[in-house]
Amino acid sequence: MTRVAVSYENHIAHVRLTRADKMNAVDQEMIDAIIAAGQEVEGSDARVVVLSGEGKAFCAGIDITGLSGMIGKDPGALLMPRTHGGTADGAHTTNQWQEVAMIWHRLEIPVIAALHGAVLGAGMQLALGADIRIAAPDARLAVMEMKWGIVPDMGGMVLLPRLVRSDVLRRLTYTAAPVAAKQAEKWGLVTEIALDPLEKAMELAGVIAGKSPSAIKAAKRLIAFAENHGAEAVLEAESREQADLIGKPHQMEVVAAEFGKRPAVFE
Amino acid sequence: MTRVAVSYENHIAHVRLTRADKMNAVDQEMIDAIIAAGQEVEGSDARVVVLSGEGKAFCAGIDITGLSGMIGKDPGALLMPRTHGGTADGAHTTNQWQEVAMIWHRLEIPVIAALHGAVLGAGMQLALGADIRIAAPDARLAVMEMKWGIVPDMGGMVLLPRLVRSDVLRRLTYTAAPVAAKQAEKWGLVTEIALDPLEKAMELAGVIAGKSPSAIKAAKRLIAFAENHGAEAVLEAESREQADLIGKPHQMEVVAAEFGKRPAVFE
Amino acid sequence: MTRVAVSYENHIAHVRLTRADKMNAVDQEMIDAIIAAGQEVEGSDARVVVLSGEGKAFCAGIDITGLSGMIGKDPGALLMPRTHGGTADGAHTTNQWQEVAMIWHRLEIPVIAALHGAVLGAGMQLALGADIRIAAPDARLAVMEMKWGIVPDMGGMVLLPRLVRSDVLRRLTYTAAPVAAKQAEKWGLVTEIALDPLEKAMELAGVIAGKSPSAIKAAKRLIAFAENHGAEAVLEAESREQADLIGKPHQMEVVAAEFGKRPAVFE
Repeated sequence: MTRVAVSYENHIAHVRLTRADKMNAVDQEMIDAIIAAGQEVEGSDARVVVLSGEGKAFCAGIDITGLSGMIGKDPGALLMPRTHGGTADGAHTTNQWQEVAMIWHRLEIPVIAALHGAVLGAGMQLALGADIRIAAPDARLAVMEMKWGIVPDMGGMVLLPRLVRSDVLRRLTYTAAPVAAKQAEKWGLVTEIALDPLEKAMELAGVIAGKSPSAIKAAKRLIAFAENHGAEAVLEAESREQADLIGKPHQMEVVAAEFGKRPAVFE
Repeated sequence: MTRVAVSYENHIAHVRLTRADKMNAVDQEMIDAIIAAGQEVEGSDARVVVLSGEGKAFCAGIDITGLSGMIGKDPGALLMPRTHGGTADGAHTTNQWQEVAMIWHRLEIPVIAALHGAVLGAGMQLALGADIRIAAPDARLAVMEMKWGIVPDMGGMVLLPRLVRSDVLRRLTYTAAPVAAKQAEKWGLVTEIALDPLEKAMELAGVIAGKSPSAIKAAKRLIAFAENHGAEAVLEAESREQADLIGKPHQMEVVAAEFGKRPAVFE
Repeated sequence: MTRVAVSYENHIAHVRLTRADKMNAVDQEMIDAIIAAGQEVEGSDARVVVLSGEGKAFCAGIDITGLSGMIGKDPGALLMPRTHGGTADGAHTTNQWQEVAMIWHRLEIPVIAALHGAVLGAGMQLALGADIRIAAPDARLAVMEMKWGIVPDMGGMVLLPRLVRSDVLRRLTYTAAPVAAKQAEKWGLVTEIALDPLEKAMELAGVIAGKSPSAIKAAKRLIAFAENHGAEAVLEAESREQADLIGKPHQMEVVAAEFGKRPAVFE
């Protein structure tokens, strides 16, 4: 059964969760399919990714269908199969649940999530892996793990503190309560609200795909570096990344196109 | 003379500043009483704490009654008696002023501060020690220390950068100007505004007290860890904390209660 | 040709970009003049700095006049002359582009930027070096570097993560799109909006200049320390900075003035 579809157009990779009948709930097949999609995009010539969900919701969280039969047994084994892997860039050692979100965070190119309807639990964590989140007014987001007596463990504890304040992080985590899009934007879970988040995400992706591919990758790399290092190292990284860009074909094409009042064309 | 009262109901510890005639101003007895209350709660079976102030204000700051007689002498000795102590969890070495705020931050269970009226100086810092801050519309908050020619030194420099932006932190600290509740919420000093902040804090405390106690403690521990460590270590901590929760009695009770559509009951 | 003017009044240094005919665009002379102004202020008895631009804009970014003749040559050499220097406090090793912003960040006293009109690219980065940013409603701000196929490299990657969320930083950097003042305030690029930002900045500077000069310097030092160190070290720094202030002439004068209901007077 298909779980995820990937298509490409104008250097934009569109990754869609396609399990609409289950509100894109995450089971083992979905985990495998999301990670596989990330790996596929990694090897493509896409310059930016749009991540969306088909049907009524972006992703309603863990598929709990199998859980009720587990009472009295060991629900943990089903909930959280943990095998380590996914060190593509040497930067993060993740388990497969973390990889569902972190593969997008670690990708060389920007990722934009288009959110609507339920964005809960594992769905919320997946969305956190994106660089930018655009949400429909009807989106409801929740750090849902506490509902099942567990803690967020899909990379959210790395990614959330860079988005929301300490008090908001605590409130979201302790209560597991869903937050409406407007409040989510105010608190930082969502970058912006749009009536048609997929259309808006595609528009933004088009803008990014038109920029220097090497500068966009350098920017994403530099931001991740800045989020993990002190001032001294970041100042040095700025100089180093810039020196690698300036005077190279992509940068010279951008300058020429700007003065020529024409779109830049990159190899 | 009594300074602080602690009561317990439904696993909620209610810690009240009871020096209403002095707007709960902080003198040496108040320092001792607040720290003693934190230590008492630490040894109780409470699952969450609500912190509030009786009378017209949460806490108007340092009690300056004795100060005017000090001119020409050494006001510092009165203002800042410094004895080291309070290393309950080995994580923080604090002096007693820092301990007033940090003991709540370090507590294993969440703390919700209900704020109204003056929340100034030492009162502001105490409130910062809480996980979540709910404020009445009339609350006025200030990082007041600059008024006395000193710097914030009650843990605020640890806690504030996780709540407010760098420019806001600088503005608050340099000017010592009070901020109205609405602006304080916008800037991040306050999590939310409620007409009756104590009622709202109790309601939220009830929600948290109904969750898995071990998962709530793990979440607070994990968030504190995430705020003090890099990505790699946080990913590992997520896995470790989760492995300790899954399949254990608290977590299995949560799952059973969820499927049984009944409240969870914890030992 | 003059690029920057510095004047002093009531312990406030006013640093003005004076290249109004070019919207204060940054060329090599401007770089040198801004750094020289920072060094001059460093040696003065000013207690606070206000930074503003004359004419229609605060600063429209890099002066690209010479660029169009460079197509096919090496625009990098012109865009980014890199000579290292500027280690006044031993804390940061900067190149001269970074120094344009970082000299204000590193200054012992607070800096308030008054922004209006275009605040783009190098102008945006210069503004980020200030402690506080007050913007006119007409201000437009952009992290502009991607327009030229380069990454922000003037200290912005150190300063921006302390002001804006990770997703906002990514959006600003990838798109290079200008942001209106109201949105900039919401996202954290701007501390507050004022119809006359220079007047408001001067008013705020007057408040800060009236505080204990040694406490203000200690506060700026402590905040910078807090932004670069873990909890344990920050708790220790709070104690150390406070011990150096309490009972000293500036602090005793503040207390005496407060009780005497008169302005404090500092040597």
